[in-house]
Amino acid sequence: MLKRVYSFNEGKLGMKALLGGKGANLAEMTTLGLPIPPGFTVTTEACRAYFASGGKLPEGLLGEIVIALHDIEEAQSAIFGDTERPLLVSVRSGSVTSMPGMMDTILNLGLNDETVRGLAEQSRNETFAYDCYRRFIQMFGEVVLGIDSIHFNQLQEQSKQTNGRVSDQEVSAGEWKELIANYKDLVAERSGQPFPQDVYQQLQLAVEAVFRSWNNMRAKVYRKAFGIPDEQGTAVSIQAMVFGNLGNDSGTGVLFTRNPSTGVKELYGEYMVNAQGEDVVAGIRTPNPIPQLLEELPLVYDRLEELASLLECHYRDMQDIEFTIEKGNLYLLQTRSGKRTGQAAVKIAVDLVEEGIISKEEAIQRIEPSHMDQLLHRSIDTSTPLEAITQGLPASPGAASGRIVFDADTAVNWTKDGQKVILVSVETSPDDVHGIIAAEGVLTSRGGMTSHAAVVARGMGKPCICGCDALSIDLSSRSVSIGTLTFQEGEDISLDSTTGQVYQGSLSLNEPVITPELLKLLEIADGIRTLKVYTNADTPLDAVKAREFGAEGIGLCRTEHMFFSGNRLPIVQAMILADDQEERILHLNRLLQMQQFDFEAMFSAMDGLPMTIRLLDPPLHEFLPNLEQLQERHRELVLSGGHAEELQRLKSTISKVHELREINPMLGLRGVRLGILFPEIYDMQIEAIFKAAEAALRRGVDVRPGIMIPLVGHSNELKQMRELVDKVAVQVLSEEFKWFKYRVGTMIEVPRAALLADSVAQYADFFSFGTNDLTQMTFGYSRDDAEGKFLGSYMEKNILETNPFQVLDQDGVGKLIEWAVVKGRAKKPFLETGICGEHGGDSESILFCHRSGLDYVSCSPYRVPFARIAAAQAALLVRAEQPEGALSAL
Amino acid sequence: MLKRVYSFNEGKLGMKALLGGKGANLAEMTTLGLPIPPGFTVTTEACRAYFASGGKLPEGLLGEIVIALHDIEEAQSAIFGDTERPLLVSVRSGSVTSMPGMMDTILNLGLNDETVRGLAEQSRNETFAYDCYRRFIQMFGEVVLGIDSIHFNQLQEQSKQTNGRVSDQEVSAGEWKELIANYKDLVAERSGQPFPQDVYQQLQLAVEAVFRSWNNMRAKVYRKAFGIPDEQGTAVSIQAMVFGNLGNDSGTGVLFTRNPSTGVKELYGEYMVNAQGEDVVAGIRTPNPIPQLLEELPLVYDRLEELASLLECHYRDMQDIEFTIEKGNLYLLQTRSGKRTGQAAVKIAVDLVEEGIISKEEAIQRIEPSHMDQLLHRSIDTSTPLEAITQGLPASPGAASGRIVFDADTAVNWTKDGQKVILVSVETSPDDVHGIIAAEGVLTSRGGMTSHAAVVARGMGKPCICGCDALSIDLSSRSVSIGTLTFQEGEDISLDSTTGQVYQGSLSLNEPVITPELLKLLEIADGIRTLKVYTNADTPLDAVKAREFGAEGIGLCRTEHMFFSGNRLPIVQAMILADDQEERILHLNRLLQMQQFDFEAMFSAMDGLPMTIRLLDPPLHEFLPNLEQLQERHRELVLSGGHAEELQRLKSTISKVHELREINPMLGLRGVRLGILFPEIYDMQIEAIFKAAEAALRRGVDVRPGIMIPLVGHSNELKQMRELVDKVAVQVLSEEFKWFKYRVGTMIEVPRAALLADSVAQYADFFSFGTNDLTQMTFGYSRDDAEGKFLGSYMEKNILETNPFQVLDQDGVGKLIEWAVVKGRAKKPFLETGICGEHGGDSESILFCHRSGLDYVSCSPYRVPFARIAAAQAALLVRAEQPEGALSAL
Repeated sequence: MLKRVYSFNEGKLGMKALLGGKGANLAEMTTLGLPIPPGFTVTTEACRAYFASGGKLPEGLLGEIVIALHDIEEAQSAIFGDTERPLLVSVRSGSVTSMPGMMDTILNLGLNDETVRGLAEQSRNETFAYDCYRRFIQMFGEVVLGIDSIHFNQLQEQSKQTNGRVSDQEVSAGEWKELIANYKDLVAERSGQPFPQDVYQQLQLAVEAVFRSWNNMRAKVYRKAFGIPDEQGTAVSIQAMVFGNLGNDSGTGVLFTRNPSTGVKELYGEYMVNAQGEDVVAGIRTPNPIPQLLEELPLVYDRLEELASLLECHYRDMQDIEFTIEKGNLYLLQTRSGKRTGQAAVKIAVDLVEEGIISKEEAIQRIEPSHMDQLLHRSIDTSTPLEAITQGLPASPGAASGRIVFDADTAVNWTKDGQKVILVSVETSPDDVHGIIAAEGVLTSRGGMTSHAAVVARGMGKPCICGCDALSIDLSSRSVSIGTLTFQEGEDISLDSTTGQVYQGSLSLNEPVITPELLKLLEIADGIRTLKVYTNADTPLDAVKAREFGAEGIGLCRTEHMFFSGNRLPIVQAMILADDQEERILHLNRLLQMQQFDFEAMFSAMDGLPMTIRLLDPPLHEFLPNLEQLQERHRELVLSGGHAEELQRLKSTISKVHELREINPMLGLRGVRLGILFPEIYDMQIEAIFKAAEAALRRGVDVRPGIMIPLVGHSNELKQMRELVDKVAVQVLSEEFKWFKYRVGTMIEVPRAALLADSVAQYADFFSFGTNDLTQMTFGYSRDDAEGKFLGSYMEKNILETNPFQVLDQDGVGKLIEWAVVKGRAKKPFLETGICGEHGGDSESILFCHRSGLDYVSCSPYRVPFARIAAAQAALLVRAEQPEGALSAL
Repeated sequence: MLKRVYSFNEGKLGMKALLGGKGANLAEMTTLGLPIPPGFTVTTEACRAYFASGGKLPEGLLGEIVIALHDIEEAQSAIFGDTERPLLVSVRSGSVTSMPGMMDTILNLGLNDETVRGLAEQSRNETFAYDCYRRFIQMFGEVVLGIDSIHFNQLQEQSKQTNGRVSDQEVSAGEWKELIANYKDLVAERSGQPFPQDVYQQLQLAVEAVFRSWNNMRAKVYRKAFGIPDEQGTAVSIQAMVFGNLGNDSGTGVLFTRNPSTGVKELYGEYMVNAQGEDVVAGIRTPNPIPQLLEELPLVYDRLEELASLLECHYRDMQDIEFTIEKGNLYLLQTRSGKRTGQAAVKIAVDLVEEGIISKEEAIQRIEPSHMDQLLHRSIDTSTPLEAITQGLPASPGAASGRIVFDADTAVNWTKDGQKVILVSVETSPDDVHGIIAAEGVLTSRGGMTSHAAVVARGMGKPCICGCDALSIDLSSRSVSIGTLTFQEGEDISLDSTTGQVYQGSLSLNEPVITPELLKLLEIADGIRTLKVYTNADTPLDAVKAREFGAEGIGLCRTEHMFFSGNRLPIVQAMILADDQEERILHLNRLLQMQQFDFEAMFSAMDGLPMTIRLLDPPLHEFLPNLEQLQERHRELVLSGGHAEELQRLKSTISKVHELREINPMLGLRGVRLGILFPEIYDMQIEAIFKAAEAALRRGVDVRPGIMIPLVGHSNELKQMRELVDKVAVQVLSEEFKWFKYRVGTMIEVPRAALLADSVAQYADFFSFGTNDLTQMTFGYSRDDAEGKFLGSYMEKNILETNPFQVLDQDGVGKLIEWAVVKGRAKKPFLETGICGEHGGDSESILFCHRSGLDYVSCSPYRVPFARIAAAQAALLVRAEQPEGALSAL
């Protein structure tokens, strides 16, 4: 028979897939001899079997559980359901991949009207016993019976009010008993059944409920957000209760072995005396910071410090530990790798390397894509002095501006319209995850650094400020007061979550800088990766910035961006509207000097590094005024009896715009097609490049230009353009610079070019995959139309898993890229290949590029550090997949 | 040394590539012992060497020519350049592929002031000798020295006027001498050199000129039109002259062994007494029909009949023979397979099979794509009696209507604006080919059935009426008079070129019907081809017609065409403008009945044959009024103080149209994307199909529907749509018809679907390649934009050889199709595959489909016979390529 229940003595860390992260860790810690209350774990396999059979516990499972329970009874000298020495247990979920707070937990199981009396006598603390019982009934009612917490909370509030109590600690045993009677009525009324007194029935129902919680809404949302497979299922750990609510020498807490926000090596976390586990995590009361424990319970603090170091060494990573203190005795309830901000992840990884705990390669592997997303945080621009309106706990660093919203659904709705929002609430619960995902940042009035909002936001790299007591939220008027100020929903605020300060209005944000630890990590990454990282840069400023961030060249310089600037656009327009080639060349000559100036500055910035310049790509009508506006202007002019000459000019512009108008401009006269039809335009750009190159060379700059032809679909296009480049080079370069080397290549963005890459490669020194257009044409999606009109529905209806414009479609678009690389190299072994689409900054896509043997990725300047690390991770991943010695055999 | 000169005794038919068609045929006929004047051929290789060296005759070539000339001298007992018995020769071009009249020929070469006297004495006919000399000087002047014929003709006209002569025959020797003196002055003045008296110099210059004529403008245009490679080059045949201008027992003519217009087995052609070769072909004088020769020179006629039969048996095809009669002796100067109309080609091929001369397979191979283009000629609708305004020779059958133009350039210019034109001229010359290509039809006042216009028009299947004497064209007033009627350029006329009748105005034309011979040929084709031929049909009428033409099913029924009809469009619009799904379904229900009615009629028409129905494909905004028009209407309504309710309705329509507007509609919300977003639309269409099917089944019709999902790019799209089809089938079909079989398949028109064909094939019973969209997306061309904006330039600038929307791009788009067929079949061996784009009716593309192993092509009803023959030809071509026994080994 398949074993479905494992005692903590029987498991180990490597059994995560079977026992869940929590179960495996508890087993591992038990084996290490750490102070773990005894218990056992029901496997994820049992959970999957439960779902497979349509919600029935596998046959024989209960028997196995009862047997395992006996071992706990023996270890604890207590008996489950016994009226004198009753054993109480916790029933906890534990998935393979950590999903903090997303699934359900039940504490104090085993209490009923009889056993509660035994607990009272045994602990000599009636208040404690009935506190446990009321907690149990509420948790059981909520989790197992699905009764909304609001009903329990109302009864509790009533009771406290009646009895004049403010905090739970003041409530007497008698008052708890009264509340328990009301709770039981509530349960009977809402569930149609009395509260179950049979402790074995309690246990069975609890196990089933934890299984079911795998599929609650918030767990599903979380899994979707973090890409966790739906079919994994959860394990259930059942463990003897230890009690943090046995008085002021008891308590419960959460400890991080290093600061999860900054990565600094210090004990970090919070605890609460006389409280049970969930009180801390749920953020219902504001707990004390860990260092305070040194004063309150110094022996416990020392023991905690010792255990923290031991666990970190054993697990070779920063740990997030849950502990309970029962009458001065420390118990560990859970340990796991701690969630951390990107900044902390980098610092911890680099520190662990320096402490000799992990290797450089491991340091790189420790950085998650979500960390990399926030590697370089934004910050509030403090160049002008600002006064914060209040301050909270800096729970997840960064900065954000947006409109206030008070609930998760509003957050989601408003962002659908493209608005930026800040989610402001008393506290967040796992039910709010979709709102946190949607928001720019989160601000809560209660809860500490380990509260739900803090943990989730850090995981996402989302700015978050917690425990900001000054907030007073009034949901009926949809407003929040901070001191004398009142903000309506929809008004702007800004958060500096690195410091915890809150500001009025929408502030401008500074882009991030590089920390010394990140610099160190990037150096490690550079030593590992084989993909080069280039940048997309259209201005000298971009180029300088990207080089600071470690770009090894420019993979894409879009020359049209130089056309759009204020004083140039009129000349560009005149050039387009020219009646003949002669007039057009006149205007082009004026543009020539401007482009030459830009190119020279960029060559200087990239001294010694390659710089790939793409010739004009967009359809000419993009530079012209909108037809409707022109017609409106024309009508106005006619009505107002405008000047005849102006009218004539306007009419001719309208007719030209009309003539240039296209039904599908994306597939029309643009890219190399412009170069073929109006060679004078490309001629000018090429001339500007060579003149700029020569000027820079004269100043001693090491100039390495590549001229890139966009939208090639047939090798003849590239052939003719290459001839044009060579012709202009001969014309423009002076005799002393005729030796000057330049490269000519093409974008591969039309499917046909990829299919016929061998033919195209004849005339190309490099291929740059323009994955945006290639995705558009391979899918037949116009990005402008698809994202607004149907991509959302396509993801909702599970046609597509991800937006192919964000994550490269490896199955389809990727197949074309792989094919083109193979075919291109077969024709020309030293062909340089890379991607310059938006995908160049996405880690999955970078892994794909590495696998496909591309030479480089090119991304925006701020994405360069991300790409350097992702490229190193890709190299490590592929290295790990290769059979031993495969590399050396090459 | 490479042999570059071949005597007629040394060559044979198989040496066409080296000797050109004319040279090879002369050699073959010489070997057969036919009466061929002796001669030799300079090879095409020599021509290519001439061009390769930049226009220099290869070294030693002249020596070889002189040696070969000696053999002619010996055979003719005459000496080149001799003053007593001068040998005269013709110098003719001869390309590998026949290009009638496109290149140059020089006759009577070897005459000078001395030898002409020898010729006069020898022939005892001074008039003849000087007639030859003046012809020679003019031809040499035109061809070798590039002097425009107009100058020679003016001098000749002056001379005739001075001497009161009407026809050439009346001119005396003295008058010719005078003219010759003037000709020589003209030559000296225009070329800067006296007319060359050295006969060897004449010969060298003539050979070079004929080589050069390969690259004259009209030859290039012709090659481009017929796809003849530019690098072939021409051979030159040099042959002893025989003289048709030695009196009334001499003459020259052209003979077809069967009627090239109808295919009837009869001697057909024309001759002219006392004339030299070019007089007939050039259409300068109207010649006599061949049967008249039986009366004039009965012995010659008999001999001609005998030789015609001999040549036809030898060459196994209808022959086009040039002959000359010199004093009652018949000489053959050329034979070649005769150009013919499509109708004639079919009749001749079928007759030759029945006469046992060729096999069925050869009959199929004899039909050229250009013949197939005209297989089914249009005709004038004669249901109402019509009176012709005049009658000419029916030179190329068919019918045409259009506006009168008087020259080729005007024809080209007007057709650029989309107008249909009829080219009307005295005669056409090879310089007019571009005008003939552009025109709907050709009408000439002079020239016979073998005149230039007739030959070229037949080759193109273009309606042509020749020798219509009643026409009087006045180019100064740009008008033509026919009897009392006068037509200005631009007025409409119609031609019935099957009868030769000309009508006033633009008449309605009947579409073609099938002749018994064509029926026979199609039956032969059906026995050979393996590709199935389906049709694209959107209406019951189309379906009936296509079935008559032999369609084996419907490959594409575009349901949206049913939406566009007058009374339905408002309902479709209301459906689109509906505010919610409920309202939309209301309108859909009205459409349901209409679609059901159409489908039922089509099922009945296709009884027993498959019928593939494509669900709605175009973007919804295509059904709505134009935004600009709506806005105009709105402005008007506001100005005129329109009804508030109407204004409101208009505003809401405008806003909806605005909302639906797309930047690149081709890549937007259309095809299956509509089906995913608005399942109720597809739901209605599927319901209509099943209800129609059931109704037809009840009437005993054998219904075989395929439901085709357009624009699929991801297998999930097809998966969900297939589920929808199955769901609706279950809902709609009554219990007794649940057994009913239907197929579900997809268009493959998005590159991604082709790349992932294995995945898509999981949910498809068939793939139909939509080569129009597939071409658009693979090239990144919007057809609407590309054809107007840059495809023309792309072909002119040799980026593309052909328009990929007309001829399938086998290199790129074809690669995707091949890939998809292989991958799809690997997943599903019985997957049916075919194409339903416009390419389905193009013979090269059909060959490609056969090679790629597709199951069918689908084309427009009128194209079905064409496709049946093209498919058979494809099968034969591929069979011929396979190594012996390869088929039986399978």
